Amino acid sequence: MGLLPTGRRNAITDVAGVLVGHSQAASGQLTGVTVVAPPALPARAGVATVNGVGELTKKLEIDEWGIIQTAVYLCGTHAVGTVYHAAVQLEGGDQEHTLIPVVGECDDSDLGDSRTVTVDDVREARSALGPEVAEGSVGGGTGMTCFDFAGGIGTASREADGHTVGVLLMCNFGDRERLTAGGLRFDPADGAPPPEGSCIAVCATDAPLSALQLRRLALRPLLGLARAGSYAANGSGEIGLAFTTSDDQSFPNSRLSPLFAAAYEAAEEAVYNALVADRPPMRKRDGREHPTFPVDHVRRP
Amino acid sequence: MGLLPTGRRNAITDVAGVLVGHSQAASGQLTGVTVVAPPALPARAGVATVNGVGELTKKLEIDEWGIIQTAVYLCGTHAVGTVYHAAVQLEGGDQEHTLIPVVGECDDSDLGDSRTVTVDDVREARSALGPEVAEGSVGGGTGMTCFDFAGGIGTASREADGHTVGVLLMCNFGDRERLTAGGLRFDPADGAPPPEGSCIAVCATDAPLSALQLRRLALRPLLGLARAGSYAANGSGEIGLAFTTSDDQSFPNSRLSPLFAAAYEAAEEAVYNALVADRPPMRKRDGREHPTFPVDHVRRP
Amino acid sequence: MGLLPTGRRNAITDVAGVLVGHSQAASGQLTGVTVVAPPALPARAGVATVNGVGELTKKLEIDEWGIIQTAVYLCGTHAVGTVYHAAVQLEGGDQEHTLIPVVGECDDSDLGDSRTVTVDDVREARSALGPEVAEGSVGGGTGMTCFDFAGGIGTASREADGHTVGVLLMCNFGDRERLTAGGLRFDPADGAPPPEGSCIAVCATDAPLSALQLRRLALRPLLGLARAGSYAANGSGEIGLAFTTSDDQSFPNSRLSPLFAAAYEAAEEAVYNALVADRPPMRKRDGREHPTFPVDHVRRP
Amino acid sequence: MGLLPTGRRNAITDVAGVLVGHSQAASGQLTGVTVVAPPALPARAGVATVNGVGELTKKLEIDEWGIIQTAVYLCGTHAVGTVYHAAVQLEGGDQEHTLIPVVGECDDSDLGDSRTVTVDDVREARSALGPEVAEGSVGGGTGMTCFDFAGGIGTASREADGHTVGVLLMCNFGDRERLTAGGLRFDPADGAPPPEGSCIAVCATDAPLSALQLRRLALRPLLGLARAGSYAANGSGEIGLAFTTSDDQSFPNSRLSPLFAAAYEAAEEAVYNALVADRPPMRKRDGREHPTFPVDHVRRP
Repeated sequence: MGLLPTGRRNAITDVAGVLVGHSQAASGQLTGVTVVAPPALPARAGVATVNGVGELTKKLEIDEWGIIQTAVYLCGTHAVGTVYHAAVQLEGGDQEHTLIPVVGECDDSDLGDSRTVTVDDVREARSALGPEVAEGSVGGGTGMTCFDFAGGIGTASREADGHTVGVLLMCNFGDRERLTAGGLRFDPADGAPPPEGSCIAVCATDAPLSALQLRRLALRPLLGLARAGSYAANGSGEIGLAFTTSDDQSFPNSRLSPLFAAAYEAAEEAVYNALVADRPPMRKRDGREHPTFPVDHVRRP
Repeated sequence: MGLLPTGRRNAITDVAGVLVGHSQAASGQLTGVTVVAPPALPARAGVATVNGVGELTKKLEIDEWGIIQTAVYLCGTHAVGTVYHAAVQLEGGDQEHTLIPVVGECDDSDLGDSRTVTVDDVREARSALGPEVAEGSVGGGTGMTCFDFAGGIGTASREADGHTVGVLLMCNFGDRERLTAGGLRFDPADGAPPPEGSCIAVCATDAPLSALQLRRLALRPLLGLARAGSYAANGSGEIGLAFTTSDDQSFPNSRLSPLFAAAYEAAEEAVYNALVADRPPMRKRDGREHPTFPVDHVRRP
Repeated sequence: MGLLPTGRRNAITDVAGVLVGHSQAASGQLTGVTVVAPPALPARAGVATVNGVGELTKKLEIDEWGIIQTAVYLCGTHAVGTVYHAAVQLEGGDQEHTLIPVVGECDDSDLGDSRTVTVDDVREARSALGPEVAEGSVGGGTGMTCFDFAGGIGTASREADGHTVGVLLMCNFGDRERLTAGGLRFDPADGAPPPEGSCIAVCATDAPLSALQLRRLALRPLLGLARAGSYAANGSGEIGLAFTTSDDQSFPNSRLSPLFAAAYEAAEEAVYNALVADRPPMRKRDGREHPTFPVDHVRRP
Repeated sequence: MGLLPTGRRNAITDVAGVLVGHSQAASGQLTGVTVVAPPALPARAGVATVNGVGELTKKLEIDEWGIIQTAVYLCGTHAVGTVYHAAVQLEGGDQEHTLIPVVGECDDSDLGDSRTVTVDDVREARSALGPEVAEGSVGGGTGMTCFDFAGGIGTASREADGHTVGVLLMCNFGDRERLTAGGLRFDPADGAPPPEGSCIAVCATDAPLSALQLRRLALRPLLGLARAGSYAANGSGEIGLAFTTSDDQSFPNSRLSPLFAAAYEAAEEAVYNALVADRPPMRKRDGREHPTFPVDHVRRP
């Protein structure tokens, strides 16, 4: 998918030093936490919004200072407070070191109760940080729905202009009839629609971008969602954050286009990666089956 | 293309009272002016930007007051001053009535010299206002390039939730190899790339939207460009403006999604409509042929 | 101070139905929680930022939808997670009702440890909701510093155009030598400066404003801070939120100026009200006395 | 006024290499053009808005790329088109070099007819570029009104952190009764109010700021207007642009506060400098005298 070469793992962790960890809630609820950790903090960062019906804490400060002080945490909507509090504790916030963590959410309430997430769940996700990225109904993506199929975490990467761009999405958006993956056309999903969805897109690069350039880069994965079939519905929180692992900020605007294309391509593919990941059978809160994407259909045309 | 029904003309003028006029520069240069006129002024409006490397005058005031006082004018980059001045004159700006007109541009300098546009050219475009919308290399779109083919003006409309949403684009963006129209795949264009492109998207509706809702609507045609293959390159000015023909602003957010989908679908189609329009053979400033989209290929698969 | 008449209480609670509650942390730390509650929820709202080095959760959603679903909570930086979680619980967030609460913070870490705030502290602040507003070192303002004096909560109101505009500030900003209250001039404060400050400004009105108009109104208290002597230092989070208690949104822009002036005047006065409030002697974490504004000096010129 | 030392000229031209030129319209109308020219172009720049009821062309592109390609032009509202067109011509815009000039306006229509400005008037302002800055009713400020007195151009500068910050304002804002200059209090002005005003603030520095830092700096002169008595009335276009003369962008955020304070102080003083400048007697379009600030009153307390 797309024109640019993928990184070795085809994951956000192809950007050297970036790690990802997941945990599912110990409560047994279909909800959890995903952490995306830059190799060093603070890291320069930018945020972009296509439809802001969602929460990404630290957004105001990223706009102003262009940095993040903590890893990026992804979870269900009602876990934001707990995850924020946990991040302060686990990343060393105290009276000498004031921290505003980055926590993004999507609404998984038709599958799980994200109020049940605990500080220990966050600790476990951090303990699991590593370069391998499980996809689908895992971590913060456990209870998420995408194009009316089980959604959740997807990742992909691209190489461009001598740099790596990686994207990790928590996918909780989309109307099935607008999905065109693999040349298939789908009918609208049966039954009540899920709560209005969202997608938090995390984008990492090793290119030495300024905060303003990162803000621009952060928008491109959201354009990749549009490519995949999202028109950013009224209730969808489509919010992107990009960070760089470089200390430098010397990159000229005139070389940005390949990086933008990389983020756009990687995000489109990450949506499909979230859909086709293996996952166990799951049920919604109302007892209905949580439908999974018909992988066999697509793989064997 | 898409899931929603088109309006009668499949044009922005399906929104009752909206008119469009084109003129080509009397200088003979491959440049011109397009006017999109709401039925009454001031009209409530909003602006959204995906990549702001371009100009849309009045943007600051639309952000603040949510209205436009004049029609929307589209032209080449170096014509903005003249068109702005002409609009003040032709729409009654004087010491009693202060006007800030809406003028958007894309860079057509590899085909035409937009400095040659005159007040009379603007007057002629206004004289041509009507409900039929010529597409392709006409008006402000005369010298524009889209996916490395002759581009320019495209329009389409959709019906949704009992309302009409129409889109008119001035298309000057895109890398050919990212175009997937009609299931075709293209090789990159030969020769020097055109100057970095842009797209101004004008969206009209008769739905009674607030200024904030119009700002949100204005973004959706730009997502349609992403659907068509744009990742918003570094030099691309992808800027949207939406206005309503309604005096009222009573529309609930909860009913916006179909209108958003309509704008997204209509914009994707308008890109193709700009590409497939009939046009005479043209040459670039450097003497090379201005390539046209291989319509027959697509029409007869 | 200013030209417009004050409301009866000269407090944000002069806007009919608005209530305020404070609690200090049961931990005994010099930190706490303040709640500003509209009479009904959701309420239409807007946010403005002069310097975004701070956190105000729900900001993205207010930008997009123009509403708040919960009261506005103010606290120290490291309490945001706990207060967010408490607000979800206390305002009825569950799997049927997804809530993103509004929590704003300033950094009180040189006086108190805001990590110690609990859900019970938030519950107590809500229990204390009423029309009388204590000022100074109370609630979320307990450990705050303003112009290098003890700061915290200040409130004021103005009547304009038949409507009431009330402002409540959590003041934690300012260099003493820029303070010009009462015609006095101050020398710079001795010793290490406090952590870089902030001010969250909450503005309430009964005028029937749209979300876009409320966003504009939300900026005016921040201009009142500039009037009082703030240049919005690099580390200052100067963030405003305005909400209306009206269901309607019919207010014409042409009548906004008196409301803007009201918010500007009320904020300037609220800064001084925070400074001159009675408070017990307090010590900073480093053992130094927390200096109080020399009220007698000002009252008896 | 303020705490920081002024530059040698107390003008924006204290920033090395910055030049200013004025011309009055050859038509004899009370309108004109002011040019502020950086020593080299493109220059890194940022824009901030407190109330966007006005026009500043190039704003979208400055947001995206953080540069200006031309000098900054200031004029009356209806001259924007002509000045824009002139700037393209006079600064070398052609088919090889696409330019979007920076043109800001305030509404001077109660004194002059800015439609009469010509390309030659712009050429003359450019010819007059130099380090000495005339203030008051000159250039673009010729027909401007500030606090219901004759207003127009004001400038001031400050030294901070080893750098120079200069501000030039085109002042056309303010209600007289909110002016507190020199400890004086004024009654509201008699007669019909002038058209709703505005202020364009240009800020120059030699500090090596990034585009994002310049956007932040651009806001501080607007806070200086608030200090002087502006609450940013509904119709006021209060728009700031900051540029740096440095090629570098290595300045740490942690050292920004003194520069912010410098811009805030300089702007407050520039307002008064615009008011107290010498000027000939002038009449408004309706025949009334254009009142001048009672300088003697203030100078001799």
